[in-house]
Amino acid sequence: MAKELISRSENYSQWYNDLVVKADLAENSAVRGCMVIKPYGYAIWEKMQAELDRMFKETGHVNAYFPLFIPKSFFSKEAAHVEGFAKECAVVTHYRLKNNPDGSGVMVDPDAKLEEELIVRPTSETIIWSTYKNWIQSYRDLPILCNQWANVVRWEMRTRLFLRTAEFLWQEGHTAHATQQEAMDEAMKMINVYATFAENFMAVPVIKGAKSENERFAGALETYTIEALMQDGKALQSGTSHFLGQNFARAFDVTFTNKDGKEELVWATSWGVSTRLMGALVMAHSDDNGLVLPPKLAPFQVVIVPIYKNEEQLDAISEKVNEIIAKLKARGISVKYDYNDNKKPGWKFAEYELKGVPVRLAMGPRDLENGTIEVARRDTLTKEVASVDNIDEYVEKLLNDIQSNIYKKAFDFRNEKTTKADSYDEFKEILNNKGGFVLAHWDGTTETEQKIKEETKATIRCIPFGQEEEEGTCIYSGKPSKGRVLFAVAY
Amino acid sequence: MAKELISRSENYSQWYNDLVVKADLAENSAVRGCMVIKPYGYAIWEKMQAELDRMFKETGHVNAYFPLFIPKSFFSKEAAHVEGFAKECAVVTHYRLKNNPDGSGVMVDPDAKLEEELIVRPTSETIIWSTYKNWIQSYRDLPILCNQWANVVRWEMRTRLFLRTAEFLWQEGHTAHATQQEAMDEAMKMINVYATFAENFMAVPVIKGAKSENERFAGALETYTIEALMQDGKALQSGTSHFLGQNFARAFDVTFTNKDGKEELVWATSWGVSTRLMGALVMAHSDDNGLVLPPKLAPFQVVIVPIYKNEEQLDAISEKVNEIIAKLKARGISVKYDYNDNKKPGWKFAEYELKGVPVRLAMGPRDLENGTIEVARRDTLTKEVASVDNIDEYVEKLLNDIQSNIYKKAFDFRNEKTTKADSYDEFKEILNNKGGFVLAHWDGTTETEQKIKEETKATIRCIPFGQEEEEGTCIYSGKPSKGRVLFAVAY
Repeated sequence: MAKELISRSENYSQWYNDLVVKADLAENSAVRGCMVIKPYGYAIWEKMQAELDRMFKETGHVNAYFPLFIPKSFFSKEAAHVEGFAKECAVVTHYRLKNNPDGSGVMVDPDAKLEEELIVRPTSETIIWSTYKNWIQSYRDLPILCNQWANVVRWEMRTRLFLRTAEFLWQEGHTAHATQQEAMDEAMKMINVYATFAENFMAVPVIKGAKSENERFAGALETYTIEALMQDGKALQSGTSHFLGQNFARAFDVTFTNKDGKEELVWATSWGVSTRLMGALVMAHSDDNGLVLPPKLAPFQVVIVPIYKNEEQLDAISEKVNEIIAKLKARGISVKYDYNDNKKPGWKFAEYELKGVPVRLAMGPRDLENGTIEVARRDTLTKEVASVDNIDEYVEKLLNDIQSNIYKKAFDFRNEKTTKADSYDEFKEILNNKGGFVLAHWDGTTETEQKIKEETKATIRCIPFGQEEEEGTCIYSGKPSKGRVLFAVAY
Repeated sequence: MAKELISRSENYSQWYNDLVVKADLAENSAVRGCMVIKPYGYAIWEKMQAELDRMFKETGHVNAYFPLFIPKSFFSKEAAHVEGFAKECAVVTHYRLKNNPDGSGVMVDPDAKLEEELIVRPTSETIIWSTYKNWIQSYRDLPILCNQWANVVRWEMRTRLFLRTAEFLWQEGHTAHATQQEAMDEAMKMINVYATFAENFMAVPVIKGAKSENERFAGALETYTIEALMQDGKALQSGTSHFLGQNFARAFDVTFTNKDGKEELVWATSWGVSTRLMGALVMAHSDDNGLVLPPKLAPFQVVIVPIYKNEEQLDAISEKVNEIIAKLKARGISVKYDYNDNKKPGWKFAEYELKGVPVRLAMGPRDLENGTIEVARRDTLTKEVASVDNIDEYVEKLLNDIQSNIYKKAFDFRNEKTTKADSYDEFKEILNNKGGFVLAHWDGTTETEQKIKEETKATIRCIPFGQEEEEGTCIYSGKPSKGRVLFAVAY
């Protein structure tokens, strides 16, 4: 088969890259670091978007749209933001092309230089807070609960499809509140929304927690994160929610009159997930045969392949299949009937395995006679023969089973790969041999955190929520610690 | 009232600008020419998107995503495209900022200059056809029916909210076909989709037709358009669909092996509508009191305002209102209950009139006693008292009536403002005094078209489809003509 994949054990990184391309999710474009999201990949992203958007609206948020460009000077207004945020940005300096005098195409018109350069947004806190200044006068104007679906650009030097690209798609929520508590609650609410989405829809278990000071978003007082574990034992940060305090309000002079008639600075949060989630989805579940998609996000949940020798057989099978399709659709199950005559059934089986279609049904002349159909599930690669009579009910139940099973498999894997370490030697040994999450005591200093990172490449993924208090000593410095934090080597 | 509008007759242009801002649809941003689409405006755009997306999928299209940036050299590859297309583009020349040595913020890092400048897409034919080259080998790979929802940038010097902005949101379909006929059919299919959407959802009647050669999209062999008439008698081009022939396939060397094993160039179309439709929606229906929204696109279709003197009255009214809300929602009607205590009913009435909410219900203590409710419709500004018993059925019917009535009003207006002219004097007289569409004979030459434009500002909006053949003489040159074309002064 032309599309065969390298195995995960042989080369996980190449397996991932090849799978993303071969399963028609995305590919590199002619523009360095920018990807093309292909229709099959985009269909998954659309399903993610639809569900997240529903969850955002259910929690009181509305969508809006803010400019792609940010004046350069805005970046300097919030000191921590400009210091901490990567400065690799796409910079627009001119606004016109003209014909080359020598007739060889176009050139940038040197007369069309912008007075102030514009930055293609790497994130929109600055442009949004400069806008909120005009929207907020009184406590009655608060809260503002806006979300934006948008593209952003960060000029990454080393890119990988979905995981790290120069341009990516995301949503960014930006909320404004009258009180600190309300903003803190909002930041927490949204990390919980992300966790629910990851677990219930992507079937990816995540650990929720707070970032260490060193790993916080530039300009944030608190960054919450959800951390997922990939099959190679590396962590993937899958969504973050930031409590920004009054930093952006101060930078852009956004105040409101409170109920007592006094001027106060507004409190802020921001939160986002991106097409990086596509990478998490692929790496969490897929196997050496290809994608394994959770039914709730699969572009189509069922594929039906007819097996026939002649037109007459195909017609008879199709008649039965069309009945089945109608019954499946009535249950809200999405289904593709692949009666394409150019490809053999074996080719199709491999293709839909590669593409992670959760359930494959195949029907041949003997099935038609017997009133049966072959049912193959993608997650376990097992096959059964079922009666066509109540196949819709059967498939509905199967899809639920698959969704749960994929989650359970990832959950068990994550638990198996989560280890406590009580000494630095043990810590290093786990990272080198087993990988995964390591729970260890840390003295709370950035210095220790950075030493550990330099020596082992592991970073503090988060200080997990709801962790039991436990007296201990830092694995690196031996200083006292009150609880374990979650380490891992991360994407 | 603080938000009062200037009247349309006094200053149509200012009326439009003020209305867009005061009704919370959009506003100018800190970045020249770029707008902020506010939540209320974005909610309308989301409804447009959802409906169009459904129609695109129903006609066999899929979504994908292509890069924001286009290498400068790509623009030179299709000669007509680069010649004809405006060269006002945002040009990215650098990819990094750095701290100013003097400590005053950030500057562009001169060492981070791109080897080849990147253009922020003004439209994506070039980047997409460079991608399609890799997707297409055989006739089996065709057709490709992709759509993209994206932001694009054209560095317009004079901008107006929604109508002409530097950055705008749109969808662009890009399809690839094995035969000329199939591509031509596709271009025609999509202009029909746009017309159906404009008429059935926006309640804006449109005239479908082909552009004259002079007004075609750069690189197109045929451009189809839908043209709408605004209340000031000016035309607004509301959507276009292009048959691109083999021009982009030739430029990017995209060939396929046909069924006979021969190499052929691929045939192309592209088609798009943008946030400009928001401008059409506002200008087609709204009045001196504010927006008039068609129920099918209103963010909420019904607003309910309680009228009360004390908490007890409010509680009693709210109990009844909640029953009504449940019944309305069961019919799929979206409703907002505004029990905000900070604003008086009169303020709310004016506010929702400004925002174009199709139906307003108001309930006071006497209504509660009598089992009645006041029903106000936005399009006619009339009020009635209705029984609460079957208010849901009543409102459902009313919303349908409003949708039809808004369309009919715009349709009658358009017909009244469409005039035949048989001489150039008559043509100019109509444009000067009555405005609107003028149907007149034209000799088919670009020369005449441009003379008429210079002298009257009117352009050929389209050569309408299905126009009767009619022998005549060109109003300008006196040369023979076989049918009338549609002229107007346009946005």
